[in-house]
Order: sequence, then structure tokens, then C-alpha cells
Amino acid sequence: MELEWVQKLRSLPNASYLGDDAAVVGSALLTTDMLTEGVDFLLNEVPPEWIGRKALAVNLSDIAAMGGVPTGFLVAAALPHKIGNTVSGGNLPLLQFAERIYAGMTPLIEKYNLTLFGGDTNTWDGGLVISITMLGKVLPFGVFRRSGGQADDAILTTGQLGGSILHKQFCFEPRINEALYLNEHCTVHSAMDISDGLALDLHRLAAESGLGAVLDEEKIPITDDAFTLSKRTGKTALEHALSDGEDFELLLTVPQVEAEKLLAKQPLRERFGTTLYGIGTLTADKKLRLRNAAGVVRDLPLRGFEH
Amino acid sequence: MELEWVQKLRSLPNASYLGDDAAVVGSALLTTDMLTEGVDFLLNEVPPEWIGRKALAVNLSDIAAMGGVPTGFLVAAALPHKIGNTVSGGNLPLLQFAERIYAGMTPLIEKYNLTLFGGDTNTWDGGLVISITMLGKVLPFGVFRRSGGQADDAILTTGQLGGSILHKQFCFEPRINEALYLNEHCTVHSAMDISDGLALDLHRLAAESGLGAVLDEEKIPITDDAFTLSKRTGKTALEHALSDGEDFELLLTVPQVEAEKLLAKQPLRERFGTTLYGIGTLTADKKLRLRNAAGVVRDLPLRGFEH
Repeated sequence: MELEWVQKLRSLPNASYLGDDAAVVGSALLTTDMLTEGVDFLLNEVPPEWIGRKALAVNLSDIAAMGGVPTGFLVAAALPHKIGNTVSGGNLPLLQFAERIYAGMTPLIEKYNLTLFGGDTNTWDGGLVISITMLGKVLPFGVFRRSGGQADDAILTTGQLGGSILHKQFCFEPRINEALYLNEHCTVHSAMDISDGLALDLHRLAAESGLGAVLDEEKIPITDDAFTLSKRTGKTALEHALSDGEDFELLLTVPQVEAEKLLAKQPLRERFGTTLYGIGTLTADKKLRLRNAAGVVRDLPLRGFEH
Repeated sequence: MELEWVQKLRSLPNASYLGDDAAVVGSALLTTDMLTEGVDFLLNEVPPEWIGRKALAVNLSDIAAMGGVPTGFLVAAALPHKIGNTVSGGNLPLLQFAERIYAGMTPLIEKYNLTLFGGDTNTWDGGLVISITMLGKVLPFGVFRRSGGQADDAILTTGQLGGSILHKQFCFEPRINEALYLNEHCTVHSAMDISDGLALDLHRLAAESGLGAVLDEEKIPITDDAFTLSKRTGKTALEHALSDGEDFELLLTVPQVEAEKLLAKQPLRERFGTTLYGIGTLTADKKLRLRNAAGVVRDLPLRGFEH
């Protein structure tokens, strides 16, 4: 439903360009992401701190996807009247619950020196909802766009993919610093963050650029958690890496010569402990394909996690 | 709970000043307001268009309270998987439901030439939640603050109060144009919008200004709906005007000479059909009081609608 709705919104006369992870308004970046109980977290499985952290981190990841600097945020929340069935077993007083959600945001607020610009706190009979609007600023080097990809660009990611549901969805590090480094020092043609699965998000990036892509199956970096998960689900670890949501790694396309240097020198590794992986190539034809080690090419299934 | 929580947030080292209806960041205004099903609307009592309109209008009212120009917004929504029990009686397809919510925003989007900067649409098992972040810009004349009130200022409102739950909560006109006119042509010392009831909101404005206030009981303009409601509730119409939430009129304080001119000339009436009412005076002592026609003064009860 979301894709269809976004298409509608994009066609509105008063909509700004909605094809990127954040809107560019003058020198400002704007993005909003909402988390809902039961979809993005379960109160009886994770502490409130993790929920607060995730709510902030997913928004930071959108600013990273644009290659910008996050500056601050507004947070609106709907808190259940009664906080029962928490991970700690019992009920939590509401104010304490709110404080613990906010405490989970604090390390990221301090790390990126974010300002809290405003908030709206509500209580209701429903589940927990947290909505954050993040602001950022555009660097002199400009912003990353999904639409800037060029045919023959190398496709890179900033980390391993898949199985995020086991751990990474709550502890991933938004790739702010990596994006800023790449924006300053490299030629990045296009970028986005992988939030709905590599296959679906690459499809979106390629579509915005008017291109297709070939992914090299054996080059796709797969998390240990994707292998763990595959034992339970019967899907292969590769399928998890292609279709699981919430990796929150950057998907970048750069000229081939740039990619060769980046993959050889790995400038993000010593600086931020982050490894870049080359996983494929943008193509002039508009197909999305997967190529195995033997060179056999097949269509890339678009299954991804659609919110 | 919200007051206590807001106090906590305001004390955080990384919080911007949170005492006004919107944050001032450079020349930008930022505010966020979230509506939740069962608190701010009932799906079986109002059409989706009204919900969309209200979600946008409450945020516009915050920009009006600052005397600024609204420029655009981001909207995040949690939509119930199944839209049953609507005012139209039956289930609505989800996309149609979303479209109708947005359609309710369209007249205000066009009237104020707002840009849609972004959105996040989610579906879940819970009720409907809509969260909007509104941006505005500061005029060369500056912004209205709650903290700018001066002793002996006249207290004005832009309309009658009370009983909003019957109709006005969904059809009120955010006082954008009134605020812009007053900002350009008059001396406004302090302002906010009345969202949680006159008594509670005046208490907040006076507290931010380090002052008290006396309201003239017989001058408080009371809506017909407050009288209608009082027949059902046993409360007086005045009590409704003092304590009902969601009036979304502006509460302004101006010098006495300014007030005399404004109340005599009523410059907003021919321009926008809006009448200004003088309802009291800010006082150097920090008490909040109500004065009746006979000059008898009593404490102002702080009952208001606290979210």
C-alpha cells in the first residue's frame, strides 16, 4: 500500500521532490520516520531504551543517505496509558517509561551533538508510537540523490546484510560519519539507505536513476545473523541478505575507478571500523538481475520488507 | 504527566528553548503535533477528511501563535490495517482512507500555499495516529513569545471560547493571517494559542513571563456551543470557556493603549471576519485571578484539558 500511496503523494502539485531519503529545502535536510509497536518493536522483547535509540537511529540513517550533517529533531509520541507486559516483566510508571525511551536516544544525541527542537507527548488507549522528524544540513559538497546513478557505476554497501531482525535493527550505527567522509573525499553518484531490503531498495535507486543493475551473488556480504536465521526459516542466507529489511547500511554507486580505490584502500575501516563491499554494477538497461559465480544471470526477485 | 515530562525535557542540555508553541531555529519555525484516535477524534463520528484537516490545522495554529508564516510540513501516519466502523458505516479500503485524510488537508495546503516536504506511512494493528511537523519562517518583525508579557498588558483573544468539542475542534480556522497582521502592524508583547483551555494556557503564558493575570469574568467571550454544552454537563458556560480545550484562538498580550485602539477599530474584522476581545490584564504579582462585574476577585481555577 505504501508504494502506491507514495506515488500519489509525489504527483501532488504542492509536494516537494519525494524521491530521496530526505527532502532538500534550501540548505536544510528534512525527514520523518515513525515506529509503531508490534511492527518495529515488541514491548515485551526489548527495553524502552532500545526503542528510543531505534526511533532516532532510523532518522539519522536517512540523513546519512543524503550525505548530510544531522542537526536536531522533533519527537512526537503516543504512549499507552498503561505500560504492561514490558521486557522487565512488570508495569512501568508512564513517566519512567518516557524517560527510559529518551535515555536510549541520549548516546546518539551526544555523539552527533543533536538539538531537541520540540516534542508532543500524548497518552492514549493504543500501543506505543514514536514519530521523529530529523533536520540536517547540506554540506558544500552537495547531497547524495537516488537519481544520480550512472550506467556502469559500481554498487557499494557499507556493511553486511540480512538477519537484522535478530539484533541489528536495534543496535545498528547510522552511517553518518561514513557518508560525510565519502561526500567530502569521493565521487558518489547516488545513494540511499537500505531499510526495506537490498533488492527492493536497489530497485528504487535504479528506477530513480532510470537504470537497471546486476548484483554479483557471491560478492553480497551476508551477516552471521542471516545464516542463523536461514536455519529457522528455510530461506537461504542470500535470500535474507537480499530481502530482509532494516539493514540501515548505505547503498552507494560510484564510478568504477573510484570503487577500485575505495575497495583497495578501505578508507572507512581505520576511521570508523566500517568495510565497503562492491556488490554489482548499474546497467543501462532497466532490468534488475543477479549474476552467480559461473556468470549465469537471472532476474532479481523484488521481495523486500514493504512497510 | 505531560507537564512533568516537558519540564524534564526543558532541562536537558541539548534541548532548544521549549517554552513556546514552536521552536525558533535561525529564521525557521518548527513545531510538531500528533493526533490519536479516541483522544483527538473518533473514527465512527467524523469523516477522514475532518481528521486530516484537524491534524494540519493544529500545527498551523502553533505557527500562528508565533506570528510566523507557515511554509510546509512532513506527515507521518500509522494507519489501522482495517478501517472498520467509520462514520460512513462500513469498511474503507486503506488507500481510499489515506486519500480522504489527505483530501481534508488540501484546502489548508492551498490557502497557505504549503509544501509537503516528506512523509512516512505505516500500517499496524492499532488505531489511527497522525503526526505532523510544520515548518514556518520568521518575519522581519520577529516572533511572538510566551515570555514577552509585561505587567499591565491587556490580554486579548481572537474569538469566543468553550464548547469546541461539539464542532469547532474540526472546523476552526488557524489564526495565521490574524497573527501576521498583528505582527506587522501592532505591538504584541506575548502570545500563544489556546489549545488546552484559557485558564491553563493563560497560566502558562503568565508563568513564562514571570507574571500573574486577572481575567474579567463578564468580558470572556463564550461560544453558543459552550452554553449548549453546559445544559448537558451541569458546568456553567463560563467554566467551559475557561477550561475546555481546543479553542485554537490566539491569546495575546499588548500594551493598554494598543488594546484600546485594536478593540475600538477591530482591524481583523473586515479583513478576516475575526473579532478581538479584551478579557483581562497581566499583573506584576504572580497570581491568576478572576474578577466579576461587581469587582469581586477570586482565584482562577486551573482546570484545563491536559493532554
